[in-house]
Amino acid sequence: MYLRLQRLLFALGLSFALVAQAVAVDNKPLLGFTREGSDRERELEARFDSLLKRDDLREWMKRLSARPHHLGSAYDRENAEFIASQFRSFGFETEIETFDVLFPTPKTRLLEMTAPEKFTAKLAEPTLPDDPTSGQTAEQLPVYNAYSIDGDVTGQLVYVNYGVPRDYDALAERGIDVKGKIVIARYGGSWRGIKPKVAAEHGAIGCLIYSDPRDDGYFQGDVYPKGAWRNEYGAQRGSVADMPLYPGDPLTPGVGATKNAKRLPIKNAPTLTKIPVMPISYADAQPLLRALNGPMAPEDWRGALPIPYHLGPGPATVHLKLEFDWKIVPANDVIARIRGNERPDEWIIRGNHHDAWVNGAEDPLSGLVAEMEEARAIGELVKSGWKPKRTIVYAAWDGEEPGLLGSTEWAETHADLLKKNAAVYINSDTNSRGFLGIEGSHTLEKFMNEVARDVTDPEKKVSVLERSRAVRIVRGSADDRREVRERADLRISALGSGSDYTSFLDHLGIASLNLGYGGEGRGGSYHSIYDSFTHFTRFIDPNFDYGIALSQTAGRTVLRLANADVLPLYFNNLSDTIERYAREVTKLADDMREETRQKNQEIGNHTLEMVADPTQVYVAPKMEEPVPYLNFAPLQNSLTRLEGSARRYDAAISEAASAGRTLSPEAEKSLDEALMRTERAMTREQGLPRRPWFKHQIYAPGFYTGYGVKTLPGVREAIEQRNWKEANDEVVIVADTLDSLSAEIDRATNILKGARR
Amino acid sequence: MYLRLQRLLFALGLSFALVAQAVAVDNKPLLGFTREGSDRERELEARFDSLLKRDDLREWMKRLSARPHHLGSAYDRENAEFIASQFRSFGFETEIETFDVLFPTPKTRLLEMTAPEKFTAKLAEPTLPDDPTSGQTAEQLPVYNAYSIDGDVTGQLVYVNYGVPRDYDALAERGIDVKGKIVIARYGGSWRGIKPKVAAEHGAIGCLIYSDPRDDGYFQGDVYPKGAWRNEYGAQRGSVADMPLYPGDPLTPGVGATKNAKRLPIKNAPTLTKIPVMPISYADAQPLLRALNGPMAPEDWRGALPIPYHLGPGPATVHLKLEFDWKIVPANDVIARIRGNERPDEWIIRGNHHDAWVNGAEDPLSGLVAEMEEARAIGELVKSGWKPKRTIVYAAWDGEEPGLLGSTEWAETHADLLKKNAAVYINSDTNSRGFLGIEGSHTLEKFMNEVARDVTDPEKKVSVLERSRAVRIVRGSADDRREVRERADLRISALGSGSDYTSFLDHLGIASLNLGYGGEGRGGSYHSIYDSFTHFTRFIDPNFDYGIALSQTAGRTVLRLANADVLPLYFNNLSDTIERYAREVTKLADDMREETRQKNQEIGNHTLEMVADPTQVYVAPKMEEPVPYLNFAPLQNSLTRLEGSARRYDAAISEAASAGRTLSPEAEKSLDEALMRTERAMTREQGLPRRPWFKHQIYAPGFYTGYGVKTLPGVREAIEQRNWKEANDEVVIVADTLDSLSAEIDRATNILKGARR
Repeated sequence: MYLRLQRLLFALGLSFALVAQAVAVDNKPLLGFTREGSDRERELEARFDSLLKRDDLREWMKRLSARPHHLGSAYDRENAEFIASQFRSFGFETEIETFDVLFPTPKTRLLEMTAPEKFTAKLAEPTLPDDPTSGQTAEQLPVYNAYSIDGDVTGQLVYVNYGVPRDYDALAERGIDVKGKIVIARYGGSWRGIKPKVAAEHGAIGCLIYSDPRDDGYFQGDVYPKGAWRNEYGAQRGSVADMPLYPGDPLTPGVGATKNAKRLPIKNAPTLTKIPVMPISYADAQPLLRALNGPMAPEDWRGALPIPYHLGPGPATVHLKLEFDWKIVPANDVIARIRGNERPDEWIIRGNHHDAWVNGAEDPLSGLVAEMEEARAIGELVKSGWKPKRTIVYAAWDGEEPGLLGSTEWAETHADLLKKNAAVYINSDTNSRGFLGIEGSHTLEKFMNEVARDVTDPEKKVSVLERSRAVRIVRGSADDRREVRERADLRISALGSGSDYTSFLDHLGIASLNLGYGGEGRGGSYHSIYDSFTHFTRFIDPNFDYGIALSQTAGRTVLRLANADVLPLYFNNLSDTIERYAREVTKLADDMREETRQKNQEIGNHTLEMVADPTQVYVAPKMEEPVPYLNFAPLQNSLTRLEGSARRYDAAISEAASAGRTLSPEAEKSLDEALMRTERAMTREQGLPRRPWFKHQIYAPGFYTGYGVKTLPGVREAIEQRNWKEANDEVVIVADTLDSLSAEIDRATNILKGARR
Repeated sequence: MYLRLQRLLFALGLSFALVAQAVAVDNKPLLGFTREGSDRERELEARFDSLLKRDDLREWMKRLSARPHHLGSAYDRENAEFIASQFRSFGFETEIETFDVLFPTPKTRLLEMTAPEKFTAKLAEPTLPDDPTSGQTAEQLPVYNAYSIDGDVTGQLVYVNYGVPRDYDALAERGIDVKGKIVIARYGGSWRGIKPKVAAEHGAIGCLIYSDPRDDGYFQGDVYPKGAWRNEYGAQRGSVADMPLYPGDPLTPGVGATKNAKRLPIKNAPTLTKIPVMPISYADAQPLLRALNGPMAPEDWRGALPIPYHLGPGPATVHLKLEFDWKIVPANDVIARIRGNERPDEWIIRGNHHDAWVNGAEDPLSGLVAEMEEARAIGELVKSGWKPKRTIVYAAWDGEEPGLLGSTEWAETHADLLKKNAAVYINSDTNSRGFLGIEGSHTLEKFMNEVARDVTDPEKKVSVLERSRAVRIVRGSADDRREVRERADLRISALGSGSDYTSFLDHLGIASLNLGYGGEGRGGSYHSIYDSFTHFTRFIDPNFDYGIALSQTAGRTVLRLANADVLPLYFNNLSDTIERYAREVTKLADDMREETRQKNQEIGNHTLEMVADPTQVYVAPKMEEPVPYLNFAPLQNSLTRLEGSARRYDAAISEAASAGRTLSPEAEKSLDEALMRTERAMTREQGLPRRPWFKHQIYAPGFYTGYGVKTLPGVREAIEQRNWKEANDEVVIVADTLDSLSAEIDRATNILKGARR
C-alpha cells in the first residue's frame, strides 16, 4: 500500500510536502489502533479484499431483481428469506423481524383532460422486448404516489414548476392563484412529497407530478432502451408522505409498528397528503401542458418539451380520480449479527434496504449486493478464526421506498437498546460508477478520509480519496479548490433524509454515515419498471467494479470501527463544521436583512412597477417586516467552548497514540461509551419545533426540502420562515446542546487523562 | 417639465438629495446652451414634440413594407425614391447617391442528408393566410447567407454549438475534429459571420446555421402566427461577410464603390467566406441533428428540440450545394440636408437604413419611420422660421443588411469632408417597446443622460432615464445597483458593430450614437418573411408609442447638437470609462495568468484525466505558455494625463456656463473644431493589427465576436490571443493615442481659457 501510494502521488505530480505528509500518514498507525493493532488490521483488510467476488454481486442482483419485490409482495418476502438464508450461511445469527405497516396501493387511477379537448392519460409504462422483466405486469405496482389520499377532483390546471414555496411567490407576482385548481409540478428541485404539501397549503385541490425530459429524459441522452434515459412513458413512483414531520408507518409515530401497537385512525394520520397526488410520464403530461394558456412560465421553469410553457390557469381542465386499498402489510427486516468478542454491547450497524418499487436492480440492489458481499467476506474471516472486538449488525431493511418503514419501526422498537449500544450506523442505498460520496456525522470525517485513502478507484487506480479531491479541484468553485489544497481532510456532507440512516441519526442520535459511488453511471430508470438487471448491467456498473469498491469502502469502515481500540471519533472537524454552519446562519440573516431592505425600497419606490411590462399582469409583492438583528452570542460562546473541548480531546488522543500508550480495557470501554454519547448529546428530547420526532439539533431534513439537509435546523428554518422570536429561542437551544456536547467531550478527555495517570 | 419631474421623484420616494439634485439640474441651462438659449431650445423641443404624429409612422411603415425591398430590388429603388420625395416635401435638400456594390443572390440551394437516411431540406418559409405579405414569393429573397462562396460539398456532420473558438476546444477535449466535415451551428453566441470563419479555420468544408427553438422559437413563446416567435420553418437570412476585417462592398475596401472605382477580382475579395454557408429552419435542422451519434453535447450546448443533442461526427452525412449570381447592383442612399445657419461646415448626421431582407417592418422600418417623422417635424420648424446653427443631414442608407454597404461606401467616398465637418453621427435601426438603449461615444454620455431625462416613457409616464435606472436596479447585479444609485450619469454602452454607425465611428473617428427602445416587444421574425406590418402591429409596438418616443429622443439629440453654442462633449465620463477598460484588460491578463497556472497544474498532475469518465473519449488540453506580466505602465501614465485634461476641460466649461460667460462666434467655432477632433484623436491611421480599416483605438467589433464590442481592442485581443509581444506593443500605441487625445482636449481648454482673457 505504501509503495503504491507513493508512486501514485509522484505520478500525480503532487507537491513534495503533500507526498511527505502522505508518507508520514502512512507510517502512522490507523486511527484508533496501536501500531501493532494497525498492522494486524491492514493484514485483515487485505484478506477481506481478496475474498470479494464480483460474480456474487451479479448473481445476487439477478436473483433479487428477477421479479417485482415491493413492500408486501410475495417476492419481497421471498427475497427477505433468501437474504436471511445467505446471512445465515455466512455465519451470522440471523432473524427476520416483521412489523405491520400501512401501505396503500391503487384501486382506481384516472386522469383525463375534459377541456379544451378530451384526453385520457395512459398511466402505464410499456413492456419492452429488450428488457425481459419489463413485461411482468401482473406483479408490478402501477405508477402512483404512496400515501396520497383518495380523491375525485376536477379543476383547471396551473403549472407550478417544482412546486416549492418560492414558485408560488412567482405565480402571485403574475396574479395567479391555485385555490380550487389542480397543479402540475415537475419532478426535481425538492423531494417529491413537498410538492403536494405546498400545493395544499396554497389551496390546490389536486397535484400531478411529471418527469420532464429536461431532467432525466432525452435532454440528458438517448432514451431507454436505446440509451439509459427515461422514455416518453417512463414515470417515477414514489412516496409523498410528509416525512419531514416523521418517517415510518404513518399510524405509529415514535413507536414500533408491532402487532399490538396503538395505531392512529387512518383519517388522523398527519403524514398522509391533504390532496390527491399522481405521478405521470411526459407523454401524458405534454397534452395537458400544451393546452395551457396564460403568461409564459419564467425562463428557468421551462423544460425540454417542444412547447411554450404557459402557466395557466386553464383552459386545460383535468379530472383526477384516485382510490387506494388502505391495507396493513408485513415489513420484513433481515437482521444479522456477529457478536463482539470484547465489547459485545457496542454495535456497529450496517444497513441497506431490500424492497424496491418494482424490480429495483439499481435502487436498492446495487447497494444491497455490495453489503451482502461484505457480510460474506466478514463471515469468512470469522470462520478463519478472527473475531471483532465489537458486535457487528448487518441489516436489510424492508419498506424503505414507501417511507423508511422497516428501519424506522426497528429503530423505534429498539430505541432504548440502540441509544445504549449503537456506536455507528453505516448506510448505503443505490450505487453507481464514479466518485465516492460520503455523507454523515462530522465526528467521523477524519476517520472516513483515512478509509477513502486506503481504497483504490477501479477505473483510475488512484485512491478514491484522491479522485474525490480531483473532482472538486476540476469542477468545484475557487473556494472548493483552495480548500481541497489546504485542508487536511476532505469535507463530508451533512445528512438530510432519503434513506434508512434517518431514524438512527435524527431520532436516536447515533453517529451515522451514508456511502455510495456515483457521478458517471447516470440514467432515467429511477422508480420505474426499467430499473432492471438489463438496464443496470448495460448502463450503470456493468462489471460491478464499483459494487466491489463499495464493499471495500463500507467493509473497511465496519472492520475498523469493530476492531479499533478506541472508537475513531474526533471533534476538531466537527467543531470547524458547526462553526461554518453558524457563520452560514448569521450570513443568512444578514443577507435577508439587506435583501429585505432593498426589496422594500423597490416596492416603496414603485421601481418594480416601473420596470414591469404593462401588457402583462404584474402584482408587486408586499413589503416584508424588516429583519431584526438576532442574538447569536449564545451560539458563538458555546462554539468557543466546543472548539476548546474538541482541541483538547483530539490533542490528548493523538498524543496517546504517538506515545504508543494503551488504556486498560475498562478505560477503553468507558471512553467508547463517552464517545458514543457525543452524538446523543447533539439531540434534545423535545425535538425540533412542530416536529418533535426529529431530535438532532445539528442535522435535519428541511421542512420544505424533504431530502435536502438543513444544518442547525431550528435556527435556520426559523430565519427562513421569518420567525424572529423562534430564531432567537433556537439559538439558545442550540447553544445549550453544544454545551452538553462539550461536556461529553470533556468527560472523554478526562477518561483519557485519568487513564494516563 | 420641472413640476412633473419633481412630482415623479417624490412619487418614487427618491431621497431628498436626489430630488434636490434634480431640481438643481433642472434649473441649470441645458448642456452647451446659455440660460436664454436653453429656454428657447426647450420651447423649440415642445413645439417639435407637438408636431409628431403616430399615424405618419403607421402609414409609412405600411407603405414601405408593402413589398420585399432588399438591396437591388425594384421596391428598394421605389422606397428610396419615396423617402427622397418625402424629405423633399419636408423642406430638405435631398439627393439619392448611388453606389455599385457586389451583391450575390442564390441560383442553386440544395441541402440533403444522404446517410443514414435520405432527407431533403425544404429551405422555404410557408405563406400564412394571417399575414398577407408572406405570400409575395415572387419578390422574396430566399433563405440564404449573403457572401457565402459557391460550393458543392458532402461530408459528415458535426454539431458545434455557437461555433465560436472555445466550442472547438470543447470538441477537441472529446476527440472531435471538424477537418473535412460539415458543421452545423446554432444562431446566437456571436455574430453569424464568425461561425463559418472559425469553422473554416478548423478545416471544415461547409457550414449550416440553424435557428434553435430555444433561442427564438417555441421555448420563448407561442410561434407565429399564434404568437410572435419563430415557427418551425422560419429561418434567419443574413450576411456572413467577414465584416470585422472591413464592412461595405467586399470589392472596394477603404474606397467608395463609385462607378469607376478600382475593384478587387471577386476571387480575391478577403471578406467572402472560405466555405459555403447556409441558414436553415429548425424543421430542416431536426432530422439532421437527430441523426447524429457520438458523445452528448455539453449541457449548455443543448437547445429545445425534443432530441438528445449528440455531437457527431456523423453518421449523418449531408450534401450542400450553393451557387450564387455574383452581380453588381445599385445601392441607393437617400441624403437630405438642412444647411446650418451659423456653422454650416459642422454636420450633425442622423441615419437609419431603409433596405430589408424581405418586408422588414421591424428591421429597419420601425427605426426609419421614426427618423422620417423627426425630419418632418424639423422641416415644419424650419418652415415656421427656425434655423439650426449647424447643418443637419438625414440619411436613409441602402444595403445595410448585406454588409453596411450604403453607409460605408458613402463614408469612404466622402471621408475627407466627413473628417473635416462631421460633428456627431446618430444612428438607429430596429425599434421596439421597452427601455431606451444608448450606445456610443463616451464623450456624449453626459449629454445623452440629459436628453433621456427630458423624454417621457409612454407606458410609465416617468422619464426614460428613470425607467432605465429602474431596470438596472431591478435586474442588474449588486454592482450595477450600487452604481446606478451613486453615479451621477447612467453609463452608456460602447459600440461594436451591426449597424451603420460603424464607418463613422471606427473608420473615420466621428463621435457616434446608436439609439433604440427594446426589451418588451420580443419575437422571432428577425430576417424572415414574417417581419411584416402585421407582425409588428400585433406584437412589437402596436400603437407606435415607442416609435414616437424614438423620434422624441433622437430628434432632441439632433436639435440640441445642431443648436448648442458649444458642442456638448465632455471628458470626465470618457476618462472614467477608459480607466475602467484599462482595469478590465489588466484584470484579464491577471485572470488568464492564474487560470493558466492552475490549468497547467491540473494538466501536469493528471487531475483532469483522473476525473474523466473512462467510458468517454477524453483528450486533456495541452499546457499553455505561462502568462507573463505585461507592462501596462505607459497606459496608466497616459490615463493619468487624460484624467487631468478631462477634469480641466469639464471644470472650465462648467465654470463658464455657470458664470453665464459666452464666447465670441470665432472662439465657439474653433472650440467646436477642437472638440470634433477629439474623437479623431482616438484613431490611428495604421488601424488595428491585421485590420487597418478599423482605426479607432478605444472601440471595435471583436475579431471573433463580430457585433460584440472589444474596447481597447488592440490590447484586449492581443491578450485574448495570447500574443504577449503584440499586447505590450499595443499598450504603447493606446498610450500614444490617449496622449494625442489629451493634447486635443488641452487645446479645447486653452481656447476656452484664451477666450476668457
